[in-house]
Amino acid sequence: MKTTALVLLAAAAALACAGARADVFPKESLIRNDRHDVAGGHGTVYGEYAFTRDKALKDQAIKEVSWLRLEPGDSIGYHPHVTNEDVYVIVSGEGVFKDKDGKDKPVKAGDVAIVRKGESHGIANTGKVPLVFVDVIAEQ
Amino acid sequence: MKTTALVLLAAAAALACAGARADVFPKESLIRNDRHDVAGGHGTVYGEYAFTRDKALKDQAIKEVSWLRLEPGDSIGYHPHVTNEDVYVIVSGEGVFKDKDGKDKPVKAGDVAIVRKGESHGIANTGKVPLVFVDVIAEQ
Repeated sequence: MKTTALVLLAAAAALACAGARADVFPKESLIRNDRHDVAGGHGTVYGEYAFTRDKALKDQAIKEVSWLRLEPGDSIGYHPHVTNEDVYVIVSGEGVFKDKDGKDKPVKAGDVAIVRKGESHGIANTGKVPLVFVDVIAEQ
Repeated sequence: MKTTALVLLAAAAALACAGARADVFPKESLIRNDRHDVAGGHGTVYGEYAFTRDKALKDQAIKEVSWLRLEPGDSIGYHPHVTNEDVYVIVSGEGVFKDKDGKDKPVKAGDVAIVRKGESHGIANTGKVPLVFVDVIAEQ
């Protein structure tokens, strides 16, 4: 029983370790992580991650890749990116992106919104359908 | 006349320079650049870029962000990433991703495929509808 548990633990650790190394992450293998009231935002950020920044290696530039979804009325609060950069690529829906100067800018499917190191951002779904976007975090 | 031309040139240069600095890139402002037979691939890579790597600054991790599209039968040939990393996030359609070991792996909407520094990749639309993906290039 103990041996089985150890083997399972080792397998899980190996998988977790391989997280940021694998090259194709099929949709059905993405890591589901739904977070609530993110950075003082409202509601839930539904997330499916290829890998998360805590699994990325020091010499890897791309630290995190995910699909994120906000339901109407939900948001990610305004927050700083101290050491890394973060790009949102809007796939569907519409919302408001709060930029590095604190200005609200409308975003819709096809738009790209980025913050660089030292800047802040936030996003809210102000539309009537889910706001879906690809999120890529990178760091030098 | 000469002055007007110089003013226009200066304005264009300022816009190009701001390319990698702006934070929201509306879909209609993306830079259209369609490339043919990329890296020995077949057909056309239809691209819409928020900014391109030649506009990114040295201290910016995210060097290029674009929407790319391959029509059925078209492809990006297998090519190395010597200094940077490249992630494809498949938004619609299906295809085959050739990974760092030269293995062909099927990809479809929702999948994430990445190459790290020193690795190679390629992608082909083997389906019957356009293969659309978000492309983010980053470098340390």
